[in-house]
Amino acid sequence: RKPIEKSVDDIIEGLLSRDRTMLSRAITLIESNAGRHKKPAEEMLQRLLPLSGDSIRIGITGVPGAGKSTFIEAFGLLLCNKGHRVAVLAVDPSSTLHGGSILGDKTRMERLANHPNAFIRPSPSGGTLGGVHRKTRETIIACEAAGYDVLLIETVGVGQSEVMVRGMVDFFMLLVLTGAGDELQGMKKGIMELADAIIVNKADGRNLELAKKTQREYKQILHFLKPATKGWTTPALTCSALYQEGIDEVWEMVLRYMKLTKESGLFFENRQIQAKEWLYAQIKEQLESSFFGNDKVKTLVPEIEKKVMDGEMTVTKASGLLFDVFYDK
Amino acid sequence: RKPIEKSVDDIIEGLLSRDRTMLSRAITLIESNAGRHKKPAEEMLQRLLPLSGDSIRIGITGVPGAGKSTFIEAFGLLLCNKGHRVAVLAVDPSSTLHGGSILGDKTRMERLANHPNAFIRPSPSGGTLGGVHRKTRETIIACEAAGYDVLLIETVGVGQSEVMVRGMVDFFMLLVLTGAGDELQGMKKGIMELADAIIVNKADGRNLELAKKTQREYKQILHFLKPATKGWTTPALTCSALYQEGIDEVWEMVLRYMKLTKESGLFFENRQIQAKEWLYAQIKEQLESSFFGNDKVKTLVPEIEKKVMDGEMTVTKASGLLFDVFYDK
Repeated sequence: RKPIEKSVDDIIEGLLSRDRTMLSRAITLIESNAGRHKKPAEEMLQRLLPLSGDSIRIGITGVPGAGKSTFIEAFGLLLCNKGHRVAVLAVDPSSTLHGGSILGDKTRMERLANHPNAFIRPSPSGGTLGGVHRKTRETIIACEAAGYDVLLIETVGVGQSEVMVRGMVDFFMLLVLTGAGDELQGMKKGIMELADAIIVNKADGRNLELAKKTQREYKQILHFLKPATKGWTTPALTCSALYQEGIDEVWEMVLRYMKLTKESGLFFENRQIQAKEWLYAQIKEQLESSFFGNDKVKTLVPEIEKKVMDGEMTVTKASGLLFDVFYDK
Repeated sequence: RKPIEKSVDDIIEGLLSRDRTMLSRAITLIESNAGRHKKPAEEMLQRLLPLSGDSIRIGITGVPGAGKSTFIEAFGLLLCNKGHRVAVLAVDPSSTLHGGSILGDKTRMERLANHPNAFIRPSPSGGTLGGVHRKTRETIIACEAAGYDVLLIETVGVGQSEVMVRGMVDFFMLLVLTGAGDELQGMKKGIMELADAIIVNKADGRNLELAKKTQREYKQILHFLKPATKGWTTPALTCSALYQEGIDEVWEMVLRYMKLTKESGLFFENRQIQAKEWLYAQIKEQLESSFFGNDKVKTLVPEIEKKVMDGEMTVTKASGLLFDVFYDK
């Protein structure tokens, strides 16, 4: 009997008894594309839903080399040692959790992976949407139902992934390196305005002074930008994940944010809005995949698209032709 | 016989003979929601399409009070006097072209409106999508076919309008007032990174020094941001639309941009990408309006949406239920 074929009852029971292996199986079921897994996955999620939500969901992004894995390990260990249960998820196939480094995740996050309070889910492969795995939100529900109260959701920023991750977390942090100007030029547009905190990592040794300078530069830019969360002044902090300095301050800042947004009601309001947006995103995705997945539409699209791009056919006519073949199927 | 009932042949002939009244009629036909106008509008646009494209499409945005109307009049007059034919379009119902000021457009842009080389189309009412009129792109085609070689497309920034306007113009400028920091706080996220130029208006009299200071501040911020157009360094300029100072420099800058992007091929590449994106946007809009416009879906949505927002129903189940009623109609 294959692990995934466990009954929904078994899996849920396993989750509630905090069995990490069972959580892995639950996520495998969630991520499965097999038709026979669809119904049980849905049933399971519907039953897990009331048990989810009691957590803080933290999104973490940053350019490759910003030290995300080292930061997540240091941050995760700190929280585990404080008694939190920490789940680490990657949302995009190319993120460091999976294969971003030669050493691989197991080695890089070994200490965190071995902590009884931690759960690390390697990056999902395939099934992405805008660079983000389709089932990350569902995986969040399963982790929360399994008692994980801090979720660290990593993204390297493929496609629209930051925007999508911002839409599924409570707090979004941007890990950066020294040299704000140069780095920002290479960053995606609008990314700074998605962040609830900028963390200048590798603030240690010879790099310390430069990190402080970079922090000041980011503070200056942040002064001009609109904060990602209303009422919250986006801070720029420094830390050294390698030497575990400044990590506690990052968590204290997250707690301040939680307190502020829970008192103002924004925390819950935000989650409701996110759930609603998720529904609409899923509906739109389904509409589009049924349209563009249609064989006749697929056959016609390249020709029509070229005519529109070359200014030979109006968009109205082009879409009219595509809808004609779609409805006549 | 109502003006809109003119034959397509008559309208096209009128456009080619540069009859402004006929252009107005063409646009009225384009904007019409009446079923009987759909076919002739499509036919007309398909015939105008090969005659369009030879222009520069300039998007202009800015907070209310930034002096957009005054700027557009000064800029438009300058271009008309240089022999250009200038069409001014507003994309959102609340823009100054329609009713943003007590004085009204006729008074505010009187000099430009009376110039034989200018065509001013008041803001469309109704039929907007994300704050932008659905038919603005089609209107651009009609104006170009009628020989207008500079299009000024104004938006005040309702909803997603800047992003949408950015997607239909060659050059996007942001008109700002003095006091960068305060103003940017009130600006929409990411707006600066959409702009190909920042124009600090009202750089005159007592305001001049402050305007220069604001220009320096914007330059500093721009230094950190990714430019809207690859290879183009987004400049910050000052001008006084009221005293017609610095307006010529704005046009010279636009010409430099045109030269650069036409030489690199980016200008045409960008237009092709925009046409393609327009096609996909129109298809998606049609898919969504058919789904959410469905009576059974409409009836069910509020209840389902609430359950999802309250964490009582999974998104998968919710969208499944909605698709069930949609397909069973």
